[in-house]
Amino acid sequence: MSSLLEQLIEAFRVLPGVGQKTAQRMAYHVLERERDGGRRLASALSEAVERVGHCTRCRDFSETEVCATCASAARDAHQLCAVESPADRLAIEQATGYRGLYFVLQGRLSPLDGIGPREIGLDRLAERLQEGEVQELIIATNPTVEGEATAHYLAQLARQHGVKPSRLAHGVPLGGELEYVDRGTLSHAFGSRSEMA
Amino acid sequence: MSSLLEQLIEAFRVLPGVGQKTAQRMAYHVLERERDGGRRLASALSEAVERVGHCTRCRDFSETEVCATCASAARDAHQLCAVESPADRLAIEQATGYRGLYFVLQGRLSPLDGIGPREIGLDRLAERLQEGEVQELIIATNPTVEGEATAHYLAQLARQHGVKPSRLAHGVPLGGELEYVDRGTLSHAFGSRSEMA
Ligand SMILES: [Zn+2]
Ligand SMILES: [Zn+2]
Repeated sequence: MSSLLEQLIEAFRVLPGVGQKTAQRMAYHVLERERDGGRRLASALSEAVERVGHCTRCRDFSETEVCATCASAARDAHQLCAVESPADRLAIEQATGYRGLYFVLQGRLSPLDGIGPREIGLDRLAERLQEGEVQELIIATNPTVEGEATAHYLAQLARQHGVKPSRLAHGVPLGGELEYVDRGTLSHAFGSRSEMA
Repeated sequence: MSSLLEQLIEAFRVLPGVGQKTAQRMAYHVLERERDGGRRLASALSEAVERVGHCTRCRDFSETEVCATCASAARDAHQLCAVESPADRLAIEQATGYRGLYFVLQGRLSPLDGIGPREIGLDRLAERLQEGEVQELIIATNPTVEGEATAHYLAQLARQHGVKPSRLAHGVPLGGELEYVDRGTLSHAFGSRSEMA
């Protein structure tokens, strides 16, 4: 077998859920009938990896300093939804009719792994809440142990700044990951979020 | 959402079995935690797409004029195994102890689609059989209607050159694709191939 082919198969395994067999199939598929698509993928990948950074307002992926959502006048700046990851943000954006803004933690509190408030941008979030425009902080961390601990910390932070914290309604399965929840459930849970006591 | 990110998600959909949701997950995964892997994939992909061609002897993928298998002195040149695709060749190579050579048709006879003997390299295969070294042509086309028709054509071609045609034993499921057959079944079928009457 060609060594460039072997390198390609190996390289595909960086993708989530792609083992040896799937990687082989991908490599052969591209070489057999999708060389142009392969070229487009190579160039989209290297462009994105080099040029997609993070929005300075919300920490979501962005190729500009401030992302399109944060820059949009059509979004309601009184609501801010905190999520763990860009994928969670996308899931909420696609499943619900939410028109407020987001804050992407890029993680969750995990003291044992050395991930404290600073690592998930909470100093930035505190400044944001301090600005006074945000009235509700919708906390959409995952319903895991660390996600719950992060939610409680965020709720406290919100209250310190006179902002009302709320949490997605029950409906998201315990121990589940937002990213994999079906749209209907996620939309329902988002709609019936409750204020945190 | 970033437009480079959208382009990347779209580009991932060129891969087999990858829909919108999986493409999103791949893009986010690479950007969140595998940027180096993403760079390696981009470069392996563009190198392979530009530089992997076909072996002039067996028509399998190769970055050199003659592939490593065809060039190897350790392979038995008396046996030639004809397969439809590089993926089928790889499946046989990985599942069986076969030590002969291969001929990759890169398709199957399909007159309605304008795919005749020339399009699947049978002029080249005829020359190869004419050389006199091959004693057995192992026909490993897929057990589909077109694969069977191709097998009969190949058997005839073999006999015209005094070469014994053989076919994989029953065991490969009817209508199935070699590429997806489990190794045990494929290995068994390969081992008990029978001479074609
Ligand atoms: Zn933003
Ligand atoms: Zn070869």
